[in-house]
Amino acid sequence: MTLIKDMNAQDQFVGFYLLRELEVRQTNSTPPKDYFDIVLGDSSGQISAKFWDVSPTDKETFFPMALVKVKGIVQLYREKLQVKIMQIRKANDEDGVSLTDFIRSAPIRPIDLVHAIKQALGSITDREIHDLTAFCVDRAEEKLMHYPAAKTHHHAYYAGLAYHMARMLELGEFLCRQRPFLNPDMLKAGIILHDIAKTEEMDARLGIVSEYSLTGKLIGHISIAASWITEAAVRLNIDPRSEKVVALQHMVLSHHNLPEWGSPVLPQTAEAVALHHIDALDAKMQMVEDALDSTPDTEPWTPPIRGLENKAIYRTNGTNV
Amino acid sequence: MTLIKDMNAQDQFVGFYLLRELEVRQTNSTPPKDYFDIVLGDSSGQISAKFWDVSPTDKETFFPMALVKVKGIVQLYREKLQVKIMQIRKANDEDGVSLTDFIRSAPIRPIDLVHAIKQALGSITDREIHDLTAFCVDRAEEKLMHYPAAKTHHHAYYAGLAYHMARMLELGEFLCRQRPFLNPDMLKAGIILHDIAKTEEMDARLGIVSEYSLTGKLIGHISIAASWITEAAVRLNIDPRSEKVVALQHMVLSHHNLPEWGSPVLPQTAEAVALHHIDALDAKMQMVEDALDSTPDTEPWTPPIRGLENKAIYRTNGTNV
Amino acid sequence: MTLIKDMNAQDQFVGFYLLRELEVRQTNSTPPKDYFDIVLGDSSGQISAKFWDVSPTDKETFFPMALVKVKGIVQLYREKLQVKIMQIRKANDEDGVSLTDFIRSAPIRPIDLVHAIKQALGSITDREIHDLTAFCVDRAEEKLMHYPAAKTHHHAYYAGLAYHMARMLELGEFLCRQRPFLNPDMLKAGIILHDIAKTEEMDARLGIVSEYSLTGKLIGHISIAASWITEAAVRLNIDPRSEKVVALQHMVLSHHNLPEWGSPVLPQTAEAVALHHIDALDAKMQMVEDALDSTPDTEPWTPPIRGLENKAIYRTNGTNV
Amino acid sequence: MTLIKDMNAQDQFVGFYLLRELEVRQTNSTPPKDYFDIVLGDSSGQISAKFWDVSPTDKETFFPMALVKVKGIVQLYREKLQVKIMQIRKANDEDGVSLTDFIRSAPIRPIDLVHAIKQALGSITDREIHDLTAFCVDRAEEKLMHYPAAKTHHHAYYAGLAYHMARMLELGEFLCRQRPFLNPDMLKAGIILHDIAKTEEMDARLGIVSEYSLTGKLIGHISIAASWITEAAVRLNIDPRSEKVVALQHMVLSHHNLPEWGSPVLPQTAEAVALHHIDALDAKMQMVEDALDSTPDTEPWTPPIRGLENKAIYRTNGTNV
Amino acid sequence: MTLIKDMNAQDQFVGFYLLRELEVRQTNSTPPKDYFDIVLGDSSGQISAKFWDVSPTDKETFFPMALVKVKGIVQLYREKLQVKIMQIRKANDEDGVSLTDFIRSAPIRPIDLVHAIKQALGSITDREIHDLTAFCVDRAEEKLMHYPAAKTHHHAYYAGLAYHMARMLELGEFLCRQRPFLNPDMLKAGIILHDIAKTEEMDARLGIVSEYSLTGKLIGHISIAASWITEAAVRLNIDPRSEKVVALQHMVLSHHNLPEWGSPVLPQTAEAVALHHIDALDAKMQMVEDALDSTPDTEPWTPPIRGLENKAIYRTNGTNV
Amino acid sequence: MTLIKDMNAQDQFVGFYLLRELEVRQTNSTPPKDYFDIVLGDSSGQISAKFWDVSPTDKETFFPMALVKVKGIVQLYREKLQVKIMQIRKANDEDGVSLTDFIRSAPIRPIDLVHAIKQALGSITDREIHDLTAFCVDRAEEKLMHYPAAKTHHHAYYAGLAYHMARMLELGEFLCRQRPFLNPDMLKAGIILHDIAKTEEMDARLGIVSEYSLTGKLIGHISIAASWITEAAVRLNIDPRSEKVVALQHMVLSHHNLPEWGSPVLPQTAEAVALHHIDALDAKMQMVEDALDSTPDTEPWTPPIRGLENKAIYRTNGTNV
Repeated sequence: MTLIKDMNAQDQFVGFYLLRELEVRQTNSTPPKDYFDIVLGDSSGQISAKFWDVSPTDKETFFPMALVKVKGIVQLYREKLQVKIMQIRKANDEDGVSLTDFIRSAPIRPIDLVHAIKQALGSITDREIHDLTAFCVDRAEEKLMHYPAAKTHHHAYYAGLAYHMARMLELGEFLCRQRPFLNPDMLKAGIILHDIAKTEEMDARLGIVSEYSLTGKLIGHISIAASWITEAAVRLNIDPRSEKVVALQHMVLSHHNLPEWGSPVLPQTAEAVALHHIDALDAKMQMVEDALDSTPDTEPWTPPIRGLENKAIYRTNGTNV
Repeated sequence: MTLIKDMNAQDQFVGFYLLRELEVRQTNSTPPKDYFDIVLGDSSGQISAKFWDVSPTDKETFFPMALVKVKGIVQLYREKLQVKIMQIRKANDEDGVSLTDFIRSAPIRPIDLVHAIKQALGSITDREIHDLTAFCVDRAEEKLMHYPAAKTHHHAYYAGLAYHMARMLELGEFLCRQRPFLNPDMLKAGIILHDIAKTEEMDARLGIVSEYSLTGKLIGHISIAASWITEAAVRLNIDPRSEKVVALQHMVLSHHNLPEWGSPVLPQTAEAVALHHIDALDAKMQMVEDALDSTPDTEPWTPPIRGLENKAIYRTNGTNV
Repeated sequence: MTLIKDMNAQDQFVGFYLLRELEVRQTNSTPPKDYFDIVLGDSSGQISAKFWDVSPTDKETFFPMALVKVKGIVQLYREKLQVKIMQIRKANDEDGVSLTDFIRSAPIRPIDLVHAIKQALGSITDREIHDLTAFCVDRAEEKLMHYPAAKTHHHAYYAGLAYHMARMLELGEFLCRQRPFLNPDMLKAGIILHDIAKTEEMDARLGIVSEYSLTGKLIGHISIAASWITEAAVRLNIDPRSEKVVALQHMVLSHHNLPEWGSPVLPQTAEAVALHHIDALDAKMQMVEDALDSTPDTEPWTPPIRGLENKAIYRTNGTNV
Repeated sequence: MTLIKDMNAQDQFVGFYLLRELEVRQTNSTPPKDYFDIVLGDSSGQISAKFWDVSPTDKETFFPMALVKVKGIVQLYREKLQVKIMQIRKANDEDGVSLTDFIRSAPIRPIDLVHAIKQALGSITDREIHDLTAFCVDRAEEKLMHYPAAKTHHHAYYAGLAYHMARMLELGEFLCRQRPFLNPDMLKAGIILHDIAKTEEMDARLGIVSEYSLTGKLIGHISIAASWITEAAVRLNIDPRSEKVVALQHMVLSHHNLPEWGSPVLPQTAEAVALHHIDALDAKMQMVEDALDSTPDTEPWTPPIRGLENKAIYRTNGTNV
Repeated sequence: MTLIKDMNAQDQFVGFYLLRELEVRQTNSTPPKDYFDIVLGDSSGQISAKFWDVSPTDKETFFPMALVKVKGIVQLYREKLQVKIMQIRKANDEDGVSLTDFIRSAPIRPIDLVHAIKQALGSITDREIHDLTAFCVDRAEEKLMHYPAAKTHHHAYYAGLAYHMARMLELGEFLCRQRPFLNPDMLKAGIILHDIAKTEEMDARLGIVSEYSLTGKLIGHISIAASWITEAAVRLNIDPRSEKVVALQHMVLSHHNLPEWGSPVLPQTAEAVALHHIDALDAKMQMVEDALDSTPDTEPWTPPIRGLENKAIYRTNGTNV
Repeated sequence: MTLIKDMNAQDQFVGFYLLRELEVRQTNSTPPKDYFDIVLGDSSGQISAKFWDVSPTDKETFFPMALVKVKGIVQLYREKLQVKIMQIRKANDEDGVSLTDFIRSAPIRPIDLVHAIKQALGSITDREIHDLTAFCVDRAEEKLMHYPAAKTHHHAYYAGLAYHMARMLELGEFLCRQRPFLNPDMLKAGIILHDIAKTEEMDARLGIVSEYSLTGKLIGHISIAASWITEAAVRLNIDPRSEKVVALQHMVLSHHNLPEWGSPVLPQTAEAVALHHIDALDAKMQMVEDALDSTPDTEPWTPPIRGLENKAIYRTNGTNV
């Protein structure tokens, strides 16, 4: 079975893939004919595909997020690879393939990621900081098992959000050892809460964001999380304007650092400064790692990466450097 | 009695003024001597002043926000006018002067302004929008009687915040008549709520902001107001993620329009777009009016106005145009 | 007859439409065949269309700005709706259709708009301000009956420019009542003059801008209007450097507020500040109104609006809020 | 006689200087005493000075722009040199000093500069371009004999404006030889006209700008020059919207290149592009030359130069490079 | 033979052209067919072309940078001209055509350009400045005979880099005469060195850049040139931190002026300031000249020019102005 | 002995301090008197001071960087604390005080920091990367024992540069464990080299930068380090354009990330991305730590921190959160 990341122009292949996107379109011919505009995916990446001879039955048979067996040929179209599908059928039980094998996932099991997050939560000694944070984790817990951290930028895969949080917690613990003036309770809570409302901001399935929710568009995950904290305080009988509540909201609100990056206030506590830079470091490193992983090993350069000022990354880990 | 706005270099004067600011400092002489670094104010403006021969009794006698009788001379110092105080004493009952005569105020009585705001509130027909807004007005009502709308930029005087709200409500009602597709309940609520949390963001007395509160610095009035709305929803048993709550928070969060002006989201409802532009129009016009009012009528140009890209305004309403 | 705004993918329809744009192109086939690349319009909006089997006669028959009867089918092409034309013929007298029914227009009759503008002009009491303004209105009057206010941004339809002026005059009159320090003559003249040279900057027919004129590209409507005022002064024997002339030119030159928005000077009179903000408020509200009007009522979101930082607008006036 | 540029801390000196600025101020002592806050100038530069013991007669005697004989001492105050004046008297006829020896001037006689400009004007072969340009030169001619090109930035001295024009004309002629596709009439006219309205924008005496005029503030020299061209066309019976008039106005309007530098349109003719870059080259080179000239030869670095991003210039022409 | 610059829609033609680019692609038909996606070039410009009926032999026959004889027809495709190739064959000896006639070249022979550069180099009197510069010229000399100065922006043709240097040297010599305080050795060396490392930054053949080199991407021509100078100093036994070496590197590093344009330091010597502005003037004038040259004489406007803020240029040299 | 950080207005004190800066100035009195404008320092911070009655002997006795015994009084001057010195004498041997006790230092001994850096250097397994890096460390080693990392921004104290490097190496090692795709040799070398040329860019003594060197101003530490690497390669007989040399230079050149922050290229290797973010994280955290350390424990807010967008930091580690 050919991994998408390894496909080259002119390759012919047969294999199982996920129908990540599917739309019925019409050709310009007279009379116009239906065809499928498709995005195929597997754990290594995704690729555009066309299926030209669509029957009425086909239109009833194929839908996004289904597993399919495809016979196809890889072509170069407008300087990008594209699959021309010769044959396609839905996968069935005898095929012995499972949906989760065909989606990109965090390299650690979701259950272990959520466990790590809850362990960090459990180690928060201040009662109020703990309870406010726990309220929000409870609300998001089920989605943390599978939500991505973003639509495309970074950690854009199954359980990517929890993975981002877990990695940042490791960095946060290291930093608290290196710089004892940091308040570990605050920093852990900030890391756990900073992106948690992405679970309300976006609609996602199988690690793939389909679109932003109404609340996501009108309020944004930063202000949604601030609102969760207020709600937690009211419901837990903590004064919503007490310093701890304000300091937690401050970390969430300021974690994008500059107003033009979406933060209404600049970081003004040591932990807020730390949170922003840990977040930036982890997100950027993951963008690099994801791009290198989904580029064939024989390619010295990744494609341009939007979150890195649209720059490609050059491999230095090969034999040449 | 010489109004501050009418003082010229070399003038000598006697009159009552408000001690807006007062600090004890030391001269460079040996031994150093105490002197007062003062800001005098009246209803027409404010001016720096020095009182050089301070006795120990004086230091026990004079404090900010007291009314005083001053004999002084106006001097030019570093291209600005400054008062050299020859004599100073506290005002007493026989003087028949009242604090509120010496502070700059909105041109309409606070009680009438708050009445206008509550009337607009009362005209909101949607029950939930009304109740959420009323919750916030209740919380701020006492401060609305005297809070300024800003530290220096615009409406920076007694009841300036309520005055800004009342004027904007007039503009909002005109606009709803001109453009019937606007939702008047939403727009009124947005106008009332958009700056209401300035009462928590800043510490003010007699219409003068002394400093920003901790919450003001770490969260800012925009996010504080969003938090009030969440709290109101929880306490009023309204779902804090219902569309109405989200739409109200959206107006507050987006009313500065661009992220670099402090809004985490851009306006995305008709009322949010209207709110931003009504706010801008009213604030800028007030800056112009305030600057013209506090410039002597004989001066063709006001001083530079920070909120207008530091430009001075030229009078066109005189005889010359 | 199906309004363009109500067309959905797969719809078949027959009706009259305006040929807003028409170009003859060739297919890739051997030998290449001619086809028409068309934009159809009606009073509710516009849509791309293709007509594939073009005969030599057709090429002599169809031209832009003609009314046609079309039988077509709506298709989805690159995520946008597009019409495939099956049959097309020119409208004739028996069809009883009139060009003006098929173009988007201001909601008020042009003659009434120009009447309102001339009434405002007539109410200017200062003789020189009146005469300078009247000179410019005379020059533009015929075009004010039909010119749009912009190519695409806002008021981009028949008599849109006069409509923008009339609405702004209403706002200006309200503002002069609210803030008596404003000079009504100046503000009215500024509103009338600020965009009047768009009639020289752009070439337009039936409310549709075809392109910018040479003068429009090299000078721009702001400087053209300033030049008209100079010319008016010279021809009316008014000193072109007198304060009134300068103050009128100042309003026109500064009405885009910031240099990066095209104004060589910042507003420095009360009326110039007011003019900019009235203009912004009216233009933005119209963008919202136009977008809502041309979006099917069942769609909660309009398309992205370029003049609103490319944000879509969410309807709050429906049943859901 | 000590040149100002050569003064060092602790120097004592006697000599003639120009009183460029003079203000009467008061000390903090009781009773306050008058003193003069002065800027002394000569052909090599300028320096702050104080005269502490001012008599009533002195206040009647000394005014800005007078020549004075000064005995003084140079001191370091807040890291800048400053003169403490011990004695001062007005220059008289016996002193044999002349005002023009004490102001900074272009290194070429004004009459020769204006001659060069008129020669370039005379060489314009197109009748209309010539006449429009000549109209503007006539209007400015008397001021061209002495006006500076700017308040402080560059060519800020006697006849600096004419000097800037003359130098640019040399560069323009060289460029027309190097690139024959350029229209020499257009480029010469553009160079002559681009800054000519600085004579209306600023009030200047003896090469020193005292302030911007009302027209200068509200319109700016770019739009004033465009207005002159319109006026010239009307008075010369040339169509003010003919291509030549528009192309001349275009060069003037676009010569600052970007909107944020004050140009309402970008350069869109070959000559407009050339004009901007010749202007930039000449202005920047003059800033460097002026800074090097007014820095003592022993100093390797000039002071920071505002027009060069506030960078100081290092001498490379000495022995060390 | 039809020059590319003179082709119009519907033209049929036969002639020789250069295959600047050629890629084999597949159509959407079943089975897919091969076709060539081609860019044809001649000395007047370039144009896209398609050859639809590609045989297996064709794929072995045609490669980029070959001369071919083409019979074709010009079509309009997406508002751009495109050639449909009917017949194509390789040029052979009997055709009597030469590759260099079909590429765009500097208007002066490369050997004369390099001669002019070496003459300027030879006139540098300072021994060390001369030797450091000569070291770099030696390294680049062979490529100077044909390298372009940029991929697309300006001087993007055969020997364009040497042409840019030669023209700038002329301007530099003129400026040194006009402003004697400039150090001619420094300025000549700066002009020669400023872009010389483009020969290492880019891979080019026949005046056409195919791509940036690894070093070009990771270091950029500015820092590569600085590195060459360091290497030259070490190899020539000149202290790499001596003032002359530093001043030369400074000119190269600062010649893009602002950090956002790629310069890590701002110009801080007179020659560095001059170098930047001479470079800007020459590059912009060349963009204008190239655009006018490759636009048919009947077109009043060139296409938009990216390096001129995407503005088109209007011809003023025709009969109309 | 009163630590500077603990001084309050009106305190009187006697103690030993470092004369960080000292300048002789003159008063305005007649005749003018000399006084000292001083900056006193100790390990906790620094403060302005004046000594008014300076004798000729004093001027021969006191110089910057001397230890002195001071009797003084703390005053408030323009809202800042300032010391008025009553008595001052130089410290002598009997006083038993040592210079190094009075300067701010990294919290770890310089010798241990340099040891840690050399250990990291020793662990680089690639021979060429090791040797190139070692060449640069050798050149800087003596200065690494005491140089600060910056003039004021961060790590601005004795051995601050080595401290910054050592801390970053710890973070780098943690990150290499967390993300095994990183090349540890490259990252270690990048961390060691990125700021190493600050030892040539700045002149510093006792951890205090007096000014930038000529090379520092004209080239900057980023390009100086790139030049060192070229020189190292030439002297070590490594091809200066080999991939390893280029990759090392790339990390140094790109470590400020964006052009507007001084980097001529953007990070384009995984290690370059990591280097920038580790640098940012460490620098910002140190700014916070330094500000908290030099603020009295009783103050909830630090002063504004320039490197953190001029924001003050609020203590969350006290009892209140």
